[in-house]
Amino acid sequence: MKQVYITRRARFNAAHKLWNPGWSDENNIDVFGKCANVNWHGHNYDLHVTIKGVPHPDTGFCMNLSDLKELIRIRVEEPLDHRNLNLDVPWLAGKMTSTEILIIEIWEQLEEAISEKGSTLHKLRLYETENNYAEYYGGE
Amino acid sequence: MKQVYITRRARFNAAHKLWNPGWSDENNIDVFGKCANVNWHGHNYDLHVTIKGVPHPDTGFCMNLSDLKELIRIRVEEPLDHRNLNLDVPWLAGKMTSTEILIIEIWEQLEEAISEKGSTLHKLRLYETENNYAEYYGGE
Amino acid sequence: MKQVYITRRARFNAAHKLWNPGWSDENNIDVFGKCANVNWHGHNYDLHVTIKGVPHPDTGFCMNLSDLKELIRIRVEEPLDHRNLNLDVPWLAGKMTSTEILIIEIWEQLEEAISEKGSTLHKLRLYETENNYAEYYGGE
Amino acid sequence: MKQVYITRRARFNAAHKLWNPGWSDENNIDVFGKCANVNWHGHNYDLHVTIKGVPHPDTGFCMNLSDLKELIRIRVEEPLDHRNLNLDVPWLAGKMTSTEILIIEIWEQLEEAISEKGSTLHKLRLYETENNYAEYYGGE
Amino acid sequence: MKQVYITRRARFNAAHKLWNPGWSDENNIDVFGKCANVNWHGHNYDLHVTIKGVPHPDTGFCMNLSDLKELIRIRVEEPLDHRNLNLDVPWLAGKMTSTEILIIEIWEQLEEAISEKGSTLHKLRLYETENNYAEYYGGE
Amino acid sequence: MKQVYITRRARFNAAHKLWNPGWSDENNIDVFGKCANVNWHGHNYDLHVTIKGVPHPDTGFCMNLSDLKELIRIRVEEPLDHRNLNLDVPWLAGKMTSTEILIIEIWEQLEEAISEKGSTLHKLRLYETENNYAEYYGGE
Repeated sequence: MKQVYITRRARFNAAHKLWNPGWSDENNIDVFGKCANVNWHGHNYDLHVTIKGVPHPDTGFCMNLSDLKELIRIRVEEPLDHRNLNLDVPWLAGKMTSTEILIIEIWEQLEEAISEKGSTLHKLRLYETENNYAEYYGGE
Repeated sequence: MKQVYITRRARFNAAHKLWNPGWSDENNIDVFGKCANVNWHGHNYDLHVTIKGVPHPDTGFCMNLSDLKELIRIRVEEPLDHRNLNLDVPWLAGKMTSTEILIIEIWEQLEEAISEKGSTLHKLRLYETENNYAEYYGGE
Repeated sequence: MKQVYITRRARFNAAHKLWNPGWSDENNIDVFGKCANVNWHGHNYDLHVTIKGVPHPDTGFCMNLSDLKELIRIRVEEPLDHRNLNLDVPWLAGKMTSTEILIIEIWEQLEEAISEKGSTLHKLRLYETENNYAEYYGGE
Repeated sequence: MKQVYITRRARFNAAHKLWNPGWSDENNIDVFGKCANVNWHGHNYDLHVTIKGVPHPDTGFCMNLSDLKELIRIRVEEPLDHRNLNLDVPWLAGKMTSTEILIIEIWEQLEEAISEKGSTLHKLRLYETENNYAEYYGGE
Repeated sequence: MKQVYITRRARFNAAHKLWNPGWSDENNIDVFGKCANVNWHGHNYDLHVTIKGVPHPDTGFCMNLSDLKELIRIRVEEPLDHRNLNLDVPWLAGKMTSTEILIIEIWEQLEEAISEKGSTLHKLRLYETENNYAEYYGGE
Repeated sequence: MKQVYITRRARFNAAHKLWNPGWSDENNIDVFGKCANVNWHGHNYDLHVTIKGVPHPDTGFCMNLSDLKELIRIRVEEPLDHRNLNLDVPWLAGKMTSTEILIIEIWEQLEEAISEKGSTLHKLRLYETENNYAEYYGGE
C-alpha cells in the first residue's frame, strides 16, 4: 500500500480587491492598504492541486491527470479565469477574496468532485504573487 | 568604448480589460474574448528595463541601479501597482491596455527621466503572463 | 510607426536522438555522447515565438495572440508534442534533430502561416533544457 | 535535537511511453492518450531528494551534500539520464513508467544507500513537466 | 476552525564560508571543499516564511502579510542582506553557517516576534542555490 | 547560410564588494550603499554564453555544447566559483567587480578560446540577482 501524492498545476488571471463592506473607507484603507483600491487590481494566480492515492497496478496512476485537469478546468478555471473574484463568482459572493479564503472556497469546489472520481484531494497551494502563497489541507 | 546593457526588473499587479468603446458589445467579445469581461480581470506584470552605456571607470556602473530602481518605482510602480489600468492612470486614459500599448506608454514615462540621469533607455520587456510578453526599443 | 515585438510561449514533450546514419556507431558515440543513446531520450521543449508589428489602433494588437496560439498549436504542438522527432514528423524526416536544426525547421512551418495572417515572424527561441537553448531570426 | 530537512535537486532527460502490454492498442490509447505514442516521447525530469537529520555540531550538516550529490549521480542520473525508461533500466523492466511508479522505484534505489551513509531519506519530489509532479515519503 | 498556511518569500545576498576553527586547514578543505575558500564566497538566499492560523472573519487573513513582511525585513533582511554571515551577525557569531544552522537561527529570530503578533510560525524554507535548500519546523 | 544562435547556461557562487580604493569610506558608502560592506557579500551568478554560427550538415551543431560547457568550466567556473571576485581572481585584480565590468572581463576570457574552437562568441548575459542582469556583445 504505497501512497503517492500527485499534483497538477493550473492558472487563472483575475481581478479583485480586499474590502470589508461593514467597515468605513478609512478602516479598509488602513488595514488593506493598496489592496483596497476601489477600482480593483489583479493577479496571475497559480494553483497546485494535490491528490493522494495508491497507484493502480494496471495504469501506474493514482488518478488520470487528464481527468483531474478537466475537472479543474470546469470547476476552477472557467468560473475564475478572466473574472472579477468579488463580482463574477456565485460561490465567492459576499466573501473576502484574500488568498486564504479563496483557497478554502476552491477546496469546497474540488473536494467532492474528486471523491466522485474515486480519488482523494490532499492539498492545495495557491500563489497570488511570486512572494505570497497559501496552502490548505481541508482545514486540519 | 565598451557598451554594456544593464537591466532592472520591476513588478506591478493591476486590473484591466480589453474593450474598444467604439465597437458593439458583440464585436468586443468576438475580438477580445474573455479579455473583454466587463467586470475586469488582472495580472502580475513583470517589467524588465534595459539601459545601455559605457561603464564609468570610477564605479564600474553604466547607471547606478539604485537610481534606476527609484525612478521605476516613482514613474511606473506607483501609478500602476494595485491599480486599474483603464480607470486609474491619467497617461493611459482613453487608450487600449493591450501589452503592446502598455509597453509603449511605459517607455514614454521612462525615457526622458532616464536621459536626465545621463543614461539611455535601450529596451523594455513586459510580461503579462508566463506565456505572453512584449518587447519595445522605442519604436524602431 | 511604433514597432513592438510580441511573444507567445508554447511547449512540447518529445523523444529524439542525435545520430548520423552515415557514420559508424563509434563515431556517433564519440561526437554525440549520451545523446546518441540508440533507444532515444527526450525533453520538455519550450518554444518562444516572437512576432513584430505596429499595434493596430482599434485593438492595440500587433497580432491577436489567440490566432497565434492556435497557429502554433496546429503547426508545431500537434506534430511534435508526445512524438519521436526522428520517426514521427514528416518535415523532420532524414534531418538531424539538434536544437539548431529543429528551430530552423519550426521556422519553416510558421513563417508563411504567420504572413498569411498579415503578421511577421521575427524570432524563435527554443529551450531543450534549462541550460541549453537556440535562437533564430530566419537565418540572418 | 533539532531536526532539519535538506534537499538536493537533480535532473535527467529521458524517453518513455505509457503502455500496458496486457491491453489492446485501443485500450492503451483510450486511457493513456498521446502518452501511449508507440515511438515514445520524453521529458526533462527534475528530482528533489530530501534528507532529514539533526545537524552535526562539527560541520553544521545533516549530511554532506557532496556525498548526496554523488550518490544521486550514481544511483539515479547514470541509469536514467539520456535513457529510455521502458527499455534501458533493469530496475524498471516490466513496470509502468508513470511518474508515480517512477518515484517509488527511485526511492528503492536511494533509501538503503542513504541509510548506509548514516542519513535518512525523508521525501522525493519528481517533476515530469512544469504542470505535473509526484511526491513520495516511502509509502506512508 | 479551518487552518490555512500562508507564506511570504524574502531574499538576502550574503558572503560566508564553511570553516571549523577547531580543525586543521587540511581537514576543513577535505570536508568542506570549495566552500572552505578562506576569502569567502556568497549566495543569493531565498527564504520562505510560513505562518499557520485560522483566517479572521473580518479580514480573511491569518496574518496581515504587510506585518509579516516588515517583521522579516527587520529581523532577517537587515541583519543578513549584503553581510558576511560569519563576521557581521551577532546571533551567528561562533556558529557554522551551513544552510541547516542558518535556518535554525533564523527561526530563533522570527518565532517569538511572530507570536507577539498573535500568529504562529509553522515552517521555514531556505534556498542556498537553485539545487540546495533546507526546511525547518522548529526542530520537530 | 542559416545562422543560428546557441546558448549554454553556467553558474558560479562568489563573494565580492563594490569599493573604489581611491575614494574615502564615506564616498564609497554614499555611492555603493550596502554593496560596499567591508566584510563582503555574495551572489549566485547565472551566466548565459551565446555562440553564433551555421549548423554543420554532419552534426546539426553550430558548436558541440560539450566543448562549450568544458571551456566555460575551465575559463569561468573554476576561477570564479566559490571565490572572492576582488581577491582571488588574477584577471580581475584591481578592477571594480560590478556586473558590467565582470561581464566584460568574462568575455575577454572566453572570446579567443571559442574562436580557437572555430566558433564565434556572440553575447553574454550575466544575472547577479533575479532583478539585475547585464548583457554584452563585445562592446559594440
